[in-house]
Amino acid sequence: MRTAIYPGSFDPLTNGHLDLIYRAARLFDRVIVAVAASEGKNPLFSLDERIALLRRVVMTVPNVEVDSFTGLLVDYVEKHQGEAVIRGLRAVSDFEFEFQLALMNRKLNPRVETIFMMPKEAYTFLSSRLVKEIAQLGGDVSGFVPAPVKAALGRKLRQIKRRK
Amino acid sequence: MRTAIYPGSFDPLTNGHLDLIYRAARLFDRVIVAVAASEGKNPLFSLDERIALLRRVVMTVPNVEVDSFTGLLVDYVEKHQGEAVIRGLRAVSDFEFEFQLALMNRKLNPRVETIFMMPKEAYTFLSSRLVKEIAQLGGDVSGFVPAPVKAALGRKLRQIKRRK
Amino acid sequence: MRTAIYPGSFDPLTNGHLDLIYRAARLFDRVIVAVAASEGKNPLFSLDERIALLRRVVMTVPNVEVDSFTGLLVDYVEKHQGEAVIRGLRAVSDFEFEFQLALMNRKLNPRVETIFMMPKEAYTFLSSRLVKEIAQLGGDVSGFVPAPVKAALGRKLRQIKRRK
Amino acid sequence: MRTAIYPGSFDPLTNGHLDLIYRAARLFDRVIVAVAASEGKNPLFSLDERIALLRRVVMTVPNVEVDSFTGLLVDYVEKHQGEAVIRGLRAVSDFEFEFQLALMNRKLNPRVETIFMMPKEAYTFLSSRLVKEIAQLGGDVSGFVPAPVKAALGRKLRQIKRRK
Amino acid sequence: MRTAIYPGSFDPLTNGHLDLIYRAARLFDRVIVAVAASEGKNPLFSLDERIALLRRVVMTVPNVEVDSFTGLLVDYVEKHQGEAVIRGLRAVSDFEFEFQLALMNRKLNPRVETIFMMPKEAYTFLSSRLVKEIAQLGGDVSGFVPAPVKAALGRKLRQIKRRK
Amino acid sequence: MRTAIYPGSFDPLTNGHLDLIYRAARLFDRVIVAVAASEGKNPLFSLDERIALLRRVVMTVPNVEVDSFTGLLVDYVEKHQGEAVIRGLRAVSDFEFEFQLALMNRKLNPRVETIFMMPKEAYTFLSSRLVKEIAQLGGDVSGFVPAPVKAALGRKLRQIKRRK
Repeated sequence: MRTAIYPGSFDPLTNGHLDLIYRAARLFDRVIVAVAASEGKNPLFSLDERIALLRRVVMTVPNVEVDSFTGLLVDYVEKHQGEAVIRGLRAVSDFEFEFQLALMNRKLNPRVETIFMMPKEAYTFLSSRLVKEIAQLGGDVSGFVPAPVKAALGRKLRQIKRRK
Repeated sequence: MRTAIYPGSFDPLTNGHLDLIYRAARLFDRVIVAVAASEGKNPLFSLDERIALLRRVVMTVPNVEVDSFTGLLVDYVEKHQGEAVIRGLRAVSDFEFEFQLALMNRKLNPRVETIFMMPKEAYTFLSSRLVKEIAQLGGDVSGFVPAPVKAALGRKLRQIKRRK
Repeated sequence: MRTAIYPGSFDPLTNGHLDLIYRAARLFDRVIVAVAASEGKNPLFSLDERIALLRRVVMTVPNVEVDSFTGLLVDYVEKHQGEAVIRGLRAVSDFEFEFQLALMNRKLNPRVETIFMMPKEAYTFLSSRLVKEIAQLGGDVSGFVPAPVKAALGRKLRQIKRRK
Repeated sequence: MRTAIYPGSFDPLTNGHLDLIYRAARLFDRVIVAVAASEGKNPLFSLDERIALLRRVVMTVPNVEVDSFTGLLVDYVEKHQGEAVIRGLRAVSDFEFEFQLALMNRKLNPRVETIFMMPKEAYTFLSSRLVKEIAQLGGDVSGFVPAPVKAALGRKLRQIKRRK
Repeated sequence: MRTAIYPGSFDPLTNGHLDLIYRAARLFDRVIVAVAASEGKNPLFSLDERIALLRRVVMTVPNVEVDSFTGLLVDYVEKHQGEAVIRGLRAVSDFEFEFQLALMNRKLNPRVETIFMMPKEAYTFLSSRLVKEIAQLGGDVSGFVPAPVKAALGRKLRQIKRRK
Repeated sequence: MRTAIYPGSFDPLTNGHLDLIYRAARLFDRVIVAVAASEGKNPLFSLDERIALLRRVVMTVPNVEVDSFTGLLVDYVEKHQGEAVIRGLRAVSDFEFEFQLALMNRKLNPRVETIFMMPKEAYTFLSSRLVKEIAQLGGDVSGFVPAPVKAALGRKLRQIKRRK
């Protein structure tokens, strides 16, 4: 049985991420979506919220699990006997940063192999950051994120506004 | 009559921006320079200061107007019946980010067309960020920004120093 | 009245080119699609064939004309009083080459302005070269070129086979 | 059982290709190295020679087979029930071209998934073209290709010289 | 006698930086490693700590000196009669940013020539930022930084933890 | 005494090459411009013509010599005790190819160090290939090549025309 780990911040999950999860689930026996705690990055959604949204959206895919990790990704992969780390590539700038990360991870643990997959080209432009910006400016993100994420974004932004 | 919108932070206006405004003014009947409020970016110059500097510098070009916008760019373009959004391209990194933005905007409103223009190659290296860094380190920015911007940068940096 | 020139080899016209022609036709009063003779490149279709295919496909767009040129593009643009040269940008590699060309053209004639437009993202991967390769390997190019081009490709490749 | 197809010209096989074959063999149940006939490219080694060299070098890896293909890659993948096409990524220029190909293949057959893997960074600079150039200029290619390929390159180049 | 200046934040020195210092020391009579104060960047190590680490590691190379600078790099280079500024290039993203900087510096002082050198390819992925991230996540950075830097990183991170 | 080798095809010498030669001559005691025979590339000017043009243009720079080489560049550099190979970088695509070459050369001979320099930004777009294309299309190349090269291009193209 081969396990792939798909790490990320998922703050929040976009249709691009989801597309990649479906693709990975067809190639591997088991896919673990590993949500990085990312405290330093000051995420919009808490770790628990991000995990709950992911679980709700991918629960229909039998060989996909959602988990979280802190510490080094390579240690997490080793512990869960992952054969591969999956990363999405959209653009040249992704490519360079992802390459650096993958080489660094390979140095830290040569058993950890990174493979790169391409989301549907309609999602090439998508990023969690752009989705949050558009939502904050009042734009409609229906085409960019699954429905539960859209609803959660709306609630979160109303909360933030009320606090100010 | 065809209208083009040239959006940006213009914090501050550089000779590269100015070069692009002149080029756009030759191609379109009306060019609106739309200054983004950019509150999240913590700009050096206030929105009013940035607008005032732009107005002072471009007032001699009859078909150029200076305005500001908040909210989604595509909504602003729609409201002002812009045919095109103009963006400057200097380098590959610009290109990727600008492409993402343009695709996202096209998704949000398919009627909004983005066109890319090239500043004079002597301004390829110019960016508002580098100009601010050089001014803060005491460098001479005469060749990089119009005279009123140079003067405003000097005043602003002296103000900041005094406050410390 | 503003005229834009869209130069290229169009060997053959793809849906990506066509998408760009429609976009340009909305921004300019008159668009001249200027087919380069490209003798050095040993094109699959003759200049006359490429022009005929283009004319057939764009004849419904009133402000688009199809023409050919030899010699320097900047001289052609000057002669036809073009305000802008239009080029499609799909990828970073495009961008660099196009930038070199545009800067060179600006040096040769500073009045010639190049503007870059983005085809629909579904056509990002399209190029005349890939279309020809796929057709030669027996693949179906229906989704990549207009119907008359598909038919012409089939005829042309059968001709070449018979000659061998 | 999951099958991956690793297509290429392998003219000739380099240590970078070999490194990728080993990596793929750890991730998939079965890896088919599919040598493209590439007649148009005027290869240095004949299809049979390229296949023979590959077989000799990878015969110790039980789940790797060597085959050839003509026609569209996606048809070959479909026929052999491949789950994934594997491509190596070394540099940004690779990335762009590979992306175009992968998107085109996905259009031609949405069931064909392309995944990208990274060779050992010591092989980042390696390409069949550079290896051939160095061998032709009398350089030592020991560190760049497996021993049987080095020997075959020597024989081939001596043959070509004698013919002149 | 020719002097080269190698500027940077060195927060902290990595094996990639060190490799470049050795390479520069073979090409120039005198190499000054110029540590930028970088107060705005909120460095992990103080300027004095960064200088002390560098001095300890490079003290065996007779023609290398360690110094610090504030203000414009071009003014520092002029004052120390440097013939060249040395910068390392690892990836395309480096390249673009470095090019902008070098062009800007050339504008500010045409006598300042920037030359780019390549670190050993095993250090391509290395950056001070990644090293700090890995150390903070408990990873082993032995292969990435000289021993004194590894020790200093350990002490610094324990200090920060204790303070929290 | 430090020697730098500046290799290239110089088919023909452009103002961009010349700018780099002057820059290198200020950094090194001796600069050898090494013209590659490049027979495979089917050059427009013969090796002797390219050398003669270079000699005529750079003869006023005392520490620059013009030579030719066949075989591996690293062997030439070793034989002439070159400390560095100089290459010009204009764009990202240059950068990638040049990096591959430089890494390959370093593998072939670790003593050969490649350094990259930037031509004047006004020459960023220049390449021998574009200059030849423009001259063949009847364009004026005065701003792109030294006067003797312009004259030689004119003579060469008239010769070729007469032969047809």
